[in-house]
Amino acid sequence: MKAGVINIGDELLIGQTVNTNLTWLGKNLGDVGISIYKSTTILDEEDEIIAALDDYMQEADLIIITGGLGPTNDDITKETLTQYFETELVLNQQVLARIESYFSAMQKEMLPSNVQQAMLPKDALVIDNQHGTASGMWFERNGKVIISLPGVPYEMKALVIEEIIPRLKSSYGIKGKYHQTIMLQGIGESFLAEKIHDWEQRIYEDQLHLAYLPSTGLIKLRLTADKGIEDAAKINRYFKELEHRFPEYVYGYNEANIFNEVGKLFIARNLTLGTVESCTGGGIANAFIQFPGTSSFF
Amino acid sequence: MKAGVINIGDELLIGQTVNTNLTWLGKNLGDVGISIYKSTTILDEEDEIIAALDDYMQEADLIIITGGLGPTNDDITKETLTQYFETELVLNQQVLARIESYFSAMQKEMLPSNVQQAMLPKDALVIDNQHGTASGMWFERNGKVIISLPGVPYEMKALVIEEIIPRLKSSYGIKGKYHQTIMLQGIGESFLAEKIHDWEQRIYEDQLHLAYLPSTGLIKLRLTADKGIEDAAKINRYFKELEHRFPEYVYGYNEANIFNEVGKLFIARNLTLGTVESCTGGGIANAFIQFPGTSSFF
Repeated sequence: MKAGVINIGDELLIGQTVNTNLTWLGKNLGDVGISIYKSTTILDEEDEIIAALDDYMQEADLIIITGGLGPTNDDITKETLTQYFETELVLNQQVLARIESYFSAMQKEMLPSNVQQAMLPKDALVIDNQHGTASGMWFERNGKVIISLPGVPYEMKALVIEEIIPRLKSSYGIKGKYHQTIMLQGIGESFLAEKIHDWEQRIYEDQLHLAYLPSTGLIKLRLTADKGIEDAAKINRYFKELEHRFPEYVYGYNEANIFNEVGKLFIARNLTLGTVESCTGGGIANAFIQFPGTSSFF
Repeated sequence: MKAGVINIGDELLIGQTVNTNLTWLGKNLGDVGISIYKSTTILDEEDEIIAALDDYMQEADLIIITGGLGPTNDDITKETLTQYFETELVLNQQVLARIESYFSAMQKEMLPSNVQQAMLPKDALVIDNQHGTASGMWFERNGKVIISLPGVPYEMKALVIEEIIPRLKSSYGIKGKYHQTIMLQGIGESFLAEKIHDWEQRIYEDQLHLAYLPSTGLIKLRLTADKGIEDAAKINRYFKELEHRFPEYVYGYNEANIFNEVGKLFIARNLTLGTVESCTGGGIANAFIQFPGTSSFF
């Protein structure tokens, strides 16, 4: 299932807010086998929303839209989607009741703009939001699913976990991909690539996907099997081969932290560690003490 | 100057890496008056890069591309741009010398893939990267500027601050926008919107731009003047009006922190504060002690 993500909100483009929604969706959709092939971030402007929809309606099977569902004048996503899909807004009694109970729990009066949030597109499936006043909306058009969600991260996440993923799973029988990551340090990306050229060729021939994920002082190599868990043994074999070939570089798997791994070696070998730091300003000590058990050797 | 940003990299779409580059560009380009109207995040795939370029070449004056310039096989941005702009790769002696000195300083040998990084498009302005081996590239086509930068954040930031913004300023005489933010608490977004409806109307009539930026427990209202500092007095007048109308909600300006503001009141009125916390788990104390001077009243 090919997914595209449209994130709507001026704040994402003016440097006010980091788009953590996309990262979270990438990880959580990926875990159930839905790949995001592209994401577009746009302003709260009708023209931009329509242009983005036109684009994704051509290529994506699933379009997830976040943002622009608030009660203020700058939020126009719901109205734009209602026009785009040629439907109309009708009062949703269930949502109105939810919003009323939400305000009465907070002992606040409701305003016309809050009532307006219970006006929802007639032929969308309304996804009830337990954590706020903006409902999610699920449209189906031309065999595609288009889902509009609030931009507030905890509301978006709750709707995806509780409502969207279960519905996608039951409707489309999607299954997860299988990822594993091996962690290396002490070698540069280009040097590693040179040394594992033959290994990399075999990876591709075996229809696994390889990604180099370098960051300061370390390299992660991630192998992904589209067919899910059945390729786990194959991936493990490839990683064991690297461990065997490069014992001096490989220090762990799946986000293992090198300070924690080194700490385990100190404990296993009954060694103790002291640090005297100058320009690292206590950074090394601080890196070690992040992990439980450090006090037994440090 | 209308800017579009294309971020290239599988890691941004699979939930591995948060796209902080876009946020940083939004803020730093915004500060010199360049607005980002749209951003697209794509995989390291030729088709996607070309489709994104086709899209932005229609609307943007400035296109900033980040990522996909590393030495490994998955990075294809440079080759794709070279084809797209119908030019060819030639060896850049200056960049080769820089890469050689970079490797000799690290006492490492160079590989063919590192030499390959000195192969750069013939008719692009090469932007020398002092912090890594991937050069920036500046193309000009149809009156538009297209800039390709490495995706590693500290390399991208250094190139933008040291090279790109000065060149854009001198070539296009761009000037900054003027932003101010007023901070309110104790009122919900929709209630505030209802109360300041008249004020909001006048804002639009005065051609200022208003954004509501709500987060947990507070609302920021940001006013922006496209014409720069000359509208500062107008913005200040609007904010003074809010301060006068809502003394119980307005607590400061421009990211002022409410704990710091409350602390200042304690000091000014010669009061002291003690906290006994249960379910806040020391959170209130912790919020206060973030600020210098807290020890004089807490």
